[in-house]
Parts: sequence; structure tokens; C-alpha cells
Amino acid sequence: MKCTVFVPSHITGFFEIVEHHNPLIKGSRGAGVTLNRGVISQVNVTDGNGEIIIKTNGSNYPLEGSVSYKTLDLLRKQFPEEIRWDEKKITIHHQTQVPIEAGFGVSAGSALGTSMSLSKLLKLPLTYNQAAAVAHRAEVELNTGLGDVMGAVMGGFPIRLEPGAPGFGKADRLLDDKVTVKGYEKDFKDINFEDIKYKSIGKDGGELYVISKSLGTIETSSVLKSPEMTRRVNKVARELLGKLISSPQISNFMDLSLEFAQKTGLIDEEVMEIVEVMKEETIGASMAMLGKTAFSISQTPDSSVEGVMVAKVDSCGCRFF
Amino acid sequence: MKCTVFVPSHITGFFEIVEHHNPLIKGSRGAGVTLNRGVISQVNVTDGNGEIIIKTNGSNYPLEGSVSYKTLDLLRKQFPEEIRWDEKKITIHHQTQVPIEAGFGVSAGSALGTSMSLSKLLKLPLTYNQAAAVAHRAEVELNTGLGDVMGAVMGGFPIRLEPGAPGFGKADRLLDDKVTVKGYEKDFKDINFEDIKYKSIGKDGGELYVISKSLGTIETSSVLKSPEMTRRVNKVARELLGKLISSPQISNFMDLSLEFAQKTGLIDEEVMEIVEVMKEETIGASMAMLGKTAFSISQTPDSSVEGVMVAKVDSCGCRFF
Repeated sequence: MKCTVFVPSHITGFFEIVEHHNPLIKGSRGAGVTLNRGVISQVNVTDGNGEIIIKTNGSNYPLEGSVSYKTLDLLRKQFPEEIRWDEKKITIHHQTQVPIEAGFGVSAGSALGTSMSLSKLLKLPLTYNQAAAVAHRAEVELNTGLGDVMGAVMGGFPIRLEPGAPGFGKADRLLDDKVTVKGYEKDFKDINFEDIKYKSIGKDGGELYVISKSLGTIETSSVLKSPEMTRRVNKVARELLGKLISSPQISNFMDLSLEFAQKTGLIDEEVMEIVEVMKEETIGASMAMLGKTAFSISQTPDSSVEGVMVAKVDSCGCRFF
Repeated sequence: MKCTVFVPSHITGFFEIVEHHNPLIKGSRGAGVTLNRGVISQVNVTDGNGEIIIKTNGSNYPLEGSVSYKTLDLLRKQFPEEIRWDEKKITIHHQTQVPIEAGFGVSAGSALGTSMSLSKLLKLPLTYNQAAAVAHRAEVELNTGLGDVMGAVMGGFPIRLEPGAPGFGKADRLLDDKVTVKGYEKDFKDINFEDIKYKSIGKDGGELYVISKSLGTIETSSVLKSPEMTRRVNKVARELLGKLISSPQISNFMDLSLEFAQKTGLIDEEVMEIVEVMKEETIGASMAMLGKTAFSISQTPDSSVEGVMVAKVDSCGCRFF
């Protein structure tokens, strides 16, 4: 038995770290954007002797320290009796469509792909949020992320109002994740509703692009573990969420993100140079948190920056396919 | 300026009414399913003299008592200064892809189509949930629905854990809204991930059908206003949600829905006859709350019942397109 899950990439624009002894409540507040590229996980469960194989882009990685293995292990501990784990062979293949350790939430994608797939294939008694919460917990316990699981579940432009796993935290979205309407160029009076009556409603109907350029990697856990950085991040972040809620527009989200990147000192000169070029050409640009990556939201896929990755905004969130 | 919104139809399987003086907190707990058919709303805002035109399937209806007008009116009262309402002409066209007053949540679709479109076109300072909350409030104040707005926002098989508008209530989903994987018939080892790397992730990837047959209409408000019916509904519903959470499977959801329909006495003989035929052929069948409609969840689109409507499960929720 196998299944495939797509988890959109989630880029955080700004965030506030919220500590809690319960990993399901610990997390971050903040805002971000999800992409129609991310992590595709194909998971296969067959009869076996407890073998576990985890591959990312075709390569094996050590199980220890891997967020996928951590997720699997949490499920195993949560359901020790219900499933005969030692009589299964579990194979997890992740394919990443975005750079790793560059602020695209690949670890959240891997964790969610694992928890959603295994919950479904093993028929675990978990709801959508309960399965996603296991992925959040794995992220928090390994310090690989604090809000990407919630973001990837929401889709669009997630606003994380209260920290925690899906079902524990609280999230909303910017309304305007699709700016233009496609394919209805005719005059309003001439619209024949029959034309669209049975049309498949595509998730890509909108035309809003996320243009990004990655210059290298930052290990999220190295930043999340530093108390000094936590203090600085939280001091800057505290008022940004309120500012976004009172004017929940994409341009404002991007302005606040750049303010965050600069005031925390997380953005370096190299990334800032690209951000400045992107800013001129788009709705707004900043640095992906946490990665050595410049990103922008644009109404066109064009960019004068060389070697960019162009994606669309995802508006649906983590899903099977 | 115009835009188009698709709101999936939401069928409730069972529900508990929760009273509250605040219409944003008042609502229902319960569970249901969303369809890839629903209400498509096209809204147009131009310069004018305060004209408001609302059409459903091409016909004009009186504004008073219409949930679309109520929604518009709530927005107008919430933003009396920000928008020059008397200098606009607002045209709202709803096209319904499902029967009206038959338990498919058409009123929620109309309200959401109105609030989402106007919030976006008029650039109101509202988030996704805040705009949706206006639709919920309109529904509650007109007694046209208590949980369909939350359901339509969630997509999939929504579980409404706590009553209220999006952002106020609390909801989850059944995990397995897609049962099979489509288009990956090849042996697992032979999967070339490159094949799917840039594939558009369709919302219709799964193959789970909602087969329904409507025999007539029930006016939701007539049922929601009766204190005797409220008591009966709530007495039966109270324990069903807990039973669903402890075994969150589609088959269980459908069994509990039928238990609800029978114990409340809401299902009549005519609908029950069809439900019995559907039950034999599908994962489960019951009556749409509140409509004279039999519905079932099935892994095939086939049915021996004549004149059924066949839809797929929507897994994305209310969205622009």
C-alpha cells in the first residue's frame, strides 16, 4: 500500500518565537507565503521485518536526526499496540522541488508527508489536524522549524496568530492570495455562466508569483537554539503581527518582512543586494526566514535577477494526490 | 472591477445547535462533506449611485431577506466611512451547481461569495477568516445556516468541533478525503519522480464521489427556529461528535449521520428508501441536513438510483478563481 502527499513550500517573512514546555503549543507567530512547489512524499508500507528506508531525492540519509524518522518514531510511540511495526517494511521517498536549508520549509514538508501518509496507510485513528500535529512536534523537538507545518497546512499567505501545531495554534490567511482573474476577459454582461458551470476549479487560477533566489544554506536549528537571537527576533517581531492584521495586504506583509529582516540583522549584504533589485520590480521583497534566500511576490513571472526560481502561490495547503 | 469566487457545496451529516447571543460564536458542532460543485459568484463593482443588483441563476430576487444582501449590508455597516457606498454600483451574480433549499449549503455559498468578493474588490482591511465571518453572521441572523460557512471554508470532510464563524469556531477534517491515488499505476520502484516534479497538483486527484438525489426542499429556517426540534436534535447529536473523533473514518461518519437522521426523526420514508439502496452500493448513505436529499460517499460514480447527481469531494475550500 502506498500513497503520495504534496506539501507546499512555506516561506516565513517574519516570526516571533513562543516557548512552551508542551511541543504542541510551542511554536511561532508570524506570516508567510506558500508555493505551488514543495515536497512530494511517496510512502510505501508492505509486510516486512521492521525495516525503515528514508530517501530524499534518491539518496539515503542516516535515520537519527532526520525529521521524517522522528515523525515516524512519534507515531510508533503513540500507537505501540495498534500497529505491528516490527512486521512492516516502511519506505519513504521525498522529492524536493525547492532548495534544502534555504528557508523553504523542506523539513516541515518531509515531516508532514511522513505523518499524513503513514496515518492514512496504517489507518491510524487520527484526524487531519492530529496527523499534522505529529509533524509539528517532530519539528519542534528537533529545532528544525516552529511554524512551517501550520503554514503548509493553511496554504495561501498564512498568518500564524497563535503558536502551536494545527488544532492547537491559531491561523488565518491574507484574503488576496489571488489578485487577478484568469480566462474571463469577456465583458461582464456577456459572461455565459454555462461556460464555467462544470469547469474544474484549478488551484492555479490566480496569477501571483513567488520569485526567489537562494545563495546558500542556514541551519535553522543553529539560529533557533541561540537565546540572544531569540531575544532580538522577538523584540522586533512583537508589533509586526498587529500591523499586518490592521492592514492585511500583500504589499504590507512584504514591507513588514523586510523591516524584520533588517532590524534583526538576519539579512546580510549579499541577500540585501538582490532584495533591492527585486523590490523595484515586484509587490515587495525580503529574505526567507531562515535561509540565505531572497524572495519576492510579483504579478509577473519576469525578473532581471539571474537564476531565480519562479513559483506560483499555492492556495490549498498540504494534500494527498 | 470584478472577481469570481467558487464556494464548494457543504452537506451536513449530523449537527448540534449551540445558542449564543453573539452571532459570531453561535453556530453548530457536527460533521459533513464538501463537493466540487457549489456556488460560483461573480461580483462586479463600478461607479454608480448606490445600485445593488443580486441575481441567482439569472433571476432577480427581492433584496430583503436575501442572504447576499444581508452580507453586503453587514459590510456596509462595518465600513460606513471607508467606502463611498452611494457612489458604487454593485452587481452580484450567483450560479448554483447544486439544488437550492435541499441541504447543499447554497445560502452559505451565496453569503461567502458575496463577502469574499466585496472584501477583495473594495480592498477592505479584512483577512480571509474575517471576511468569511461576515458570511457566517449573515447566515445566523437570517437563520439560513449555522455551520455551512465554516464547512465550505475547510473543504474535504469538515468536522466542526466548536461552533462559530471562521476565526471564532474550531474545525478539523477527516484525514482520508482522498482514498486512492490516481495516475501512478506503475510499480513503486519504477516511479520516476521527474514525471511528477512539475505536475500541477490537481484538487481532483482523489477518486471519492458524493452521489445524491434530491426529492424536494426544506426551508432551513423553519427547522432552526423550532425549540422542540432544537432539543431533539441536540439530545441525539451530543455524543456523535465524540464517537467520530475516536474513530475518524468516512464509513463511521456516514453511519453516525444515518443514526442521527433516524433518531431525530428528520428523515422520512421517501428519503429512507433511497438511502437504503445507496447504502448497499457505497461507503455509506444518509440524509443531507437540512434538505429532502439522500446522499452517499462512494468510491465509484455509479449508482442504481435514477437521476442522481454525482460530484467529487472538494479538498480545498472556498477560493477565488
